[in-house]
Amino acid sequence: MNENIKWLREKLKSQDLQGMIVSNPINIKYLTGIESEGVLLITLKENIFITDSRYTEAVNTVLTIEDEILVNDKRHLSKEDYAGFFIFCENVGFEEKYVTYYDYKNMMQTYRVNLTETEGIIENQRAIKDDEEISCIRKACKITDDCFEYLKTFIKKGMTEKEIAFEIERYMITNGADDVSFEPIVASGHNSSMPHAIPTTRKIKEGDIIILDFGCKYKGYCSDMTRTVFIDYVEDMYKEVYELVLKNNKMTINDIKEGSSIKAITRNSNEDLKLNGYMAMHSPGHGVGLEVHEQPALSINTDNNLKANMVVTVEPGIYVHGRFGVRIEDTVLVTRGGSVRLTESSKDYTIIKNNV
Amino acid sequence: MNENIKWLREKLKSQDLQGMIVSNPINIKYLTGIESEGVLLITLKENIFITDSRYTEAVNTVLTIEDEILVNDKRHLSKEDYAGFFIFCENVGFEEKYVTYYDYKNMMQTYRVNLTETEGIIENQRAIKDDEEISCIRKACKITDDCFEYLKTFIKKGMTEKEIAFEIERYMITNGADDVSFEPIVASGHNSSMPHAIPTTRKIKEGDIIILDFGCKYKGYCSDMTRTVFIDYVEDMYKEVYELVLKNNKMTINDIKEGSSIKAITRNSNEDLKLNGYMAMHSPGHGVGLEVHEQPALSINTDNNLKANMVVTVEPGIYVHGRFGVRIEDTVLVTRGGSVRLTESSKDYTIIKNNV
Repeated sequence: MNENIKWLREKLKSQDLQGMIVSNPINIKYLTGIESEGVLLITLKENIFITDSRYTEAVNTVLTIEDEILVNDKRHLSKEDYAGFFIFCENVGFEEKYVTYYDYKNMMQTYRVNLTETEGIIENQRAIKDDEEISCIRKACKITDDCFEYLKTFIKKGMTEKEIAFEIERYMITNGADDVSFEPIVASGHNSSMPHAIPTTRKIKEGDIIILDFGCKYKGYCSDMTRTVFIDYVEDMYKEVYELVLKNNKMTINDIKEGSSIKAITRNSNEDLKLNGYMAMHSPGHGVGLEVHEQPALSINTDNNLKANMVVTVEPGIYVHGRFGVRIEDTVLVTRGGSVRLTESSKDYTIIKNNV
Repeated sequence: MNENIKWLREKLKSQDLQGMIVSNPINIKYLTGIESEGVLLITLKENIFITDSRYTEAVNTVLTIEDEILVNDKRHLSKEDYAGFFIFCENVGFEEKYVTYYDYKNMMQTYRVNLTETEGIIENQRAIKDDEEISCIRKACKITDDCFEYLKTFIKKGMTEKEIAFEIERYMITNGADDVSFEPIVASGHNSSMPHAIPTTRKIKEGDIIILDFGCKYKGYCSDMTRTVFIDYVEDMYKEVYELVLKNNKMTINDIKEGSSIKAITRNSNEDLKLNGYMAMHSPGHGVGLEVHEQPALSINTDNNLKANMVVTVEPGIYVHGRFGVRIEDTVLVTRGGSVRLTESSKDYTIIKNNV
């Protein structure tokens, strides 16, 4: 049995749960490697993946005997089989933030067991990465850094935001990524004032500021990076804001280490912006892993401290309403004494000069 | 008030529901045109959309006075406001197949009302398309057909499945589609034996069979088509299976018309495969609209008959374990006397020949 399932089993035991029904496909991938539709049952004695005939072949190419996961085709399971899975279990966990009310009711009838909310037990486990996961995220970050280098030569005046966004996707996929980790944000000129801008047909022109927010997946693991770049020259009004955001980005990365309070880190970052006259329009960061946004959220509502081997982003931004914005974001590994940047692209002014 | 909301209000009344909480964003788009985050309340007297300040501007550009939808910023709503929305309501519907168990519990506390399952009331309404919806689906199907024509010239030996999948996305987006309707399936050689294969880095080679399953969205409405193509020549073992699948596809399309029993159509298709020695590995089709899979499901568990202006796919497939598969799928409009194919690409053998 792999370490993730062993760890989960220990955790369930400590919460007086004799089993769990895992429905969230990301959690199933995390625990088993399986990416096919189905449900994973952690029962008293066994790990059972219930799927249907469409997927049994794909599942069996992923699993080995060492995984100790029984694969069942749901068409071969009777009512009695289902009712038997959790026999002798008093409380069985389920994912209340993933399972619909309808599925909850069905699960009650199917498994005939007392279902208990698990409050993100696996999501919390996922927040702390093992070596293999970190190396996948590192690789995703490397591809992202390389993509940024490439963009410096690719971006030309007259191109649209959409074209650049699309080129980011093409680059990622043809350079070893599974996929982008989210639709790239390319926000130029006044569009950069919207934190969640969607690429438009606006054309890049002289003097532009451009926010590039992008990342990719490698073996399912995500990267996330933002750089703000300039065309031909940097206008003075941009410089002041850029310096503030960069200072905040570096300060916040410095705050990050095992044991630091997430609440305090968040407050520090927000207060720094506020002292300089700007409101924090979004959280300063979030966990990254199998999902591009996962635990821990860097939020003043998060009571936990950072733990070693968490991977989080640091992404302060300043947005001047209707005019422009600057955001600088890195993916960062939490370590015992501090943090290690996994995205290594330069944060000095990037000025793209070309005559097209 | 628009026709869709009027229709829903009548339906709610007939089911003794005095209101409904609409959470599914697709249903909200269907009823209001709104694509921003939020929840739609159908109360005794009003239609209320609750959103937050990030979206009020976008929402107000979509709505007009004729829509009769009040927009509320949730930051301005008190506990009492929430509890007052469904005052004098005995039963209020909610979307039990969309709302998570966690959100259901929150809704109970927030609205303080008896929540009643609505059993897909809006999804069922959505199954029957109006003229504007049909013309959007037609357009999505046209882009899909054009993409298939393009792929015949694009696909070359040595390319990976991923590269082809990516090119499908690029083509769709640069040729008028909002987006793909799902991640394209490109399954070549033995990968084609998995009905839901994910594109890999396997390279296309001489003699290959390739399943191409893809579609796009136009103004939110989806298309869905599958063609199975060949590189250089068609091996004899593929031919026999291809003919069976094609015959089944045509027979099933012939079965489709207003009033036909969905159960019978499904059984016919499955039995035909079985008579030839193959198991049906998936359902022979599904509704298509704002979602690529929606009502009606072509299933032996569906008791309803087809109605005019439903749009469904017909997608029989045969999968030879570990060796190869064939699937042929069209998007089809149900009419009074029969059906009209909306995807018009040829289903004769497509043999891609090139020397690369």
